[in-house]
Amino acid sequence: MSLHPLDKTIALQWQADGSATGHYPDDYWNMIGPFGGATAALMLNAVMSHPQRLGEPISVTVNYAGPVAQGPFTVQARAVRTNRSTQHWIIELQHPGEHGEPAVSTTATVVTAARRPTWGASDAPMPDVPPADAVPRAWRPVNVPWLQRYEFRPISGDIPAQWDGQGEHSLSQLWMRDDPPRPLDFCGLTALADVFFPRVWLRRAQRVPVGTVSMTVYFHADGRLLADSGSGCVLGEARAQAYRHGFFDQSGLLWNAQGMLLASTHQVVYYKA
Amino acid sequence: MSLHPLDKTIALQWQADGSATGHYPDDYWNMIGPFGGATAALMLNAVMSHPQRLGEPISVTVNYAGPVAQGPFTVQARAVRTNRSTQHWIIELQHPGEHGEPAVSTTATVVTAARRPTWGASDAPMPDVPPADAVPRAWRPVNVPWLQRYEFRPISGDIPAQWDGQGEHSLSQLWMRDDPPRPLDFCGLTALADVFFPRVWLRRAQRVPVGTVSMTVYFHADGRLLADSGSGCVLGEARAQAYRHGFFDQSGLLWNAQGMLLASTHQVVYYKA
Repeated sequence: MSLHPLDKTIALQWQADGSATGHYPDDYWNMIGPFGGATAALMLNAVMSHPQRLGEPISVTVNYAGPVAQGPFTVQARAVRTNRSTQHWIIELQHPGEHGEPAVSTTATVVTAARRPTWGASDAPMPDVPPADAVPRAWRPVNVPWLQRYEFRPISGDIPAQWDGQGEHSLSQLWMRDDPPRPLDFCGLTALADVFFPRVWLRRAQRVPVGTVSMTVYFHADGRLLADSGSGCVLGEARAQAYRHGFFDQSGLLWNAQGMLLASTHQVVYYKA
Repeated sequence: MSLHPLDKTIALQWQADGSATGHYPDDYWNMIGPFGGATAALMLNAVMSHPQRLGEPISVTVNYAGPVAQGPFTVQARAVRTNRSTQHWIIELQHPGEHGEPAVSTTATVVTAARRPTWGASDAPMPDVPPADAVPRAWRPVNVPWLQRYEFRPISGDIPAQWDGQGEHSLSQLWMRDDPPRPLDFCGLTALADVFFPRVWLRRAQRVPVGTVSMTVYFHADGRLLADSGSGCVLGEARAQAYRHGFFDQSGLLWNAQGMLLASTHQVVYYKA
């Protein structure tokens, strides 16, 4: 059985010096670099696959510092502090430099913890939407590899059909999952948190250059809930709150098909206008 | 003129080796450690006061890894990558260990950038609330130092008057500002982003042990807008979305008195139940 493209992308070989190496393939390539969600999944995988990792991820923040190059890379993941039930990580992704000096393209922090049963509540119920199989799949340009790695079933707020500068809001709701399907786990969910197309494109109905600067995912699901979600569709919802001086924010929520909230996610995005 | 307590708390002395030292006073002390917002402001100040800093902060993420001790500390702030118009930082706060080995209590990442005029919009208008001077100040227990460092004027969702386990929602709106008043800047705004009392207390009308694990602030304001805001009240709004297995998330917004959105903020919080 061949490896899923995401697993191929985030695969790491641990070295004797405590670093890990890998090789960025082109399965999740975007226009001028890889899809940021795949890079976020890679950063989280440096913790998930780390021999010292304790517990499950509670939060991950990924900072996109510079271009991610195709080819070989090195990841440094450091457990800065290990407590009785939480662990704090700093991760750096490095690429060979043109003149020998390696360059950091991405940094991340991850918190893992032992999760225990407690009182709980969800105040973000899944919106009332048709089931995934009642929503047609949208086809995306085949010349953008990463767009082929996901199934998108837009319910509302899809990419504007006309770029006429007449946008009014930034809310999108869609069913989505990996293509080929992949059983949900923390890395796959992290990547899914970044699949929303840029909110400023919807808000303005105008395509402008953009780039995520920093993304955070808070996990409400534990490993068992993710496993129970299988490779079914995930409902995603995202919107922006403010656009100013070249940066906008995006907040999103992801539920499984049974309506359980899996994660909340936030990012700040550069835009040119 | 004496230094404002927040400026005293976040003051740093830069050393020849590139680290900075400081001394945590008790002005912002909470029950068993300092108010997390003051620590977040300290982490950001390690970048704001760094000789190599370029631009203004776009985002800051602070991870609370372990107890912050009163007394001397060391901050390591590293510009991991400097681009033409953005800069990426990793910051670590260390305290002398009991047995010589320093312990990391807090980590942070900060992105700074050169902000430029662009098309902009705010889709998070300030709620329709009475002005700050029409809302009475709420008094907080005098034995908790940090609570005296803020003026709170709750509009809705204040700390429950009865801890009867009958909570229904987690939304709070309040006017707030430093006491004594302090002209708003990025560090002060960062601290303000953490003043909301724990959402789980409101949602359950029950006081349980809590601790912020990770907090992010996205700045929509630039330095000029903050300066224009002076030392006036800031309207804060916060709510949680999900509580599960010992962790809940909180999302908040902060506007100045003129209704301009200054920041959006998110955090994930440990709770015991």
